[in-house]
Amino acid sequence: MKSIITISREFGSGGHSIGEAVAKKLGYRFFDRELVNQVAERSGFSPEFIEESGEYASAKNSLLFAIATANQYTMNGISMLDKLYIEQTKIIEEIAQEGSCVIVGRCADYILREYRDCLHVFIHADMKSRAKRIVERFGEQERPAEKRLNEKDQRRKVYYKNYTGRTWGQAQNYDLCLNSGVLGSERCVELIAAACK
Amino acid sequence: MKSIITISREFGSGGHSIGEAVAKKLGYRFFDRELVNQVAERSGFSPEFIEESGEYASAKNSLLFAIATANQYTMNGISMLDKLYIEQTKIIEEIAQEGSCVIVGRCADYILREYRDCLHVFIHADMKSRAKRIVERFGEQERPAEKRLNEKDQRRKVYYKNYTGRTWGQAQNYDLCLNSGVLGSERCVELIAAACK
Repeated sequence: MKSIITISREFGSGGHSIGEAVAKKLGYRFFDRELVNQVAERSGFSPEFIEESGEYASAKNSLLFAIATANQYTMNGISMLDKLYIEQTKIIEEIAQEGSCVIVGRCADYILREYRDCLHVFIHADMKSRAKRIVERFGEQERPAEKRLNEKDQRRKVYYKNYTGRTWGQAQNYDLCLNSGVLGSERCVELIAAACK
Repeated sequence: MKSIITISREFGSGGHSIGEAVAKKLGYRFFDRELVNQVAERSGFSPEFIEESGEYASAKNSLLFAIATANQYTMNGISMLDKLYIEQTKIIEEIAQEGSCVIVGRCADYILREYRDCLHVFIHADMKSRAKRIVERFGEQERPAEKRLNEKDQRRKVYYKNYTGRTWGQAQNYDLCLNSGVLGSERCVELIAAACK
């Protein structure tokens, strides 16, 4: 039985809800926003900054990124984004050592790549399903849903590449990749639970 | 219930045997070498040439590739490799139209990408498991197993890119990707059958 499940996901694929349902089904602890808050507490960064950092590593026009990476905003010579990544790594390793859990996002698949008893999952979906989902969840915005998704994808890809050297969404980096648009969320939960056994 | 399953796989991942077991479990027709032979009959190519063509699109040192792609060896202005691909495409579409089946390899995932009731599966495994498997199956050879695998990967990648424009092994191209090294072949069979329902 795999006791640690990491879930990487495309924005709008329902990966967060699927991870939560898997944790509930298996009686595992669940970490996502809570993880972010733990990092925040230790590092002194605001939860908002931490949540955004996973997205903005590539956003060259982002003031947040500019501030975070500017040399004058380093601590002991390490950039704020890098410091945050180091804190995240420590926390994810501690969580893994404390027993069974589901961890969503934050490069947990890479950080725990050498751990035994890990199942690494990637959840994706076609653009249409994802667009429908984010509009249902966050409402219409000025920029079309598809454009927002493409930007998010690009940011996650660059963040992941930057910290892991890997290609985001490459099947070989995961044990199980699921198309939630075709399979549906409930089926994804069942398949992840079955793959853990 | 998905009635058509395409299986793309890394060499040595056990994808062929898994596909065969899924077909047996679900009572679906199974196509792999048989498909190759059907293509051969129609096109007049030898089965050996066809089996190799999926591998040698990128092998610049291969005499076979040199011959197949040389301009003087075209038929009505189409290269032999392209003609073969066109024949394969027709046969795969016919098979799909005739009802439930499992098709391994030959870009079937791409050829049937617009078909409803299709489940597109990719099977991969870590280098160690794959090397063990090919040595068990084909014995030791002069070149180390890992080197042979890397070359095969490279060839499949280039062939796939050439005919589909897609990146081989990119999770987003499939509905279900499985690491047979971690999950084991039997579990993979179960998961594919469960994903079909």
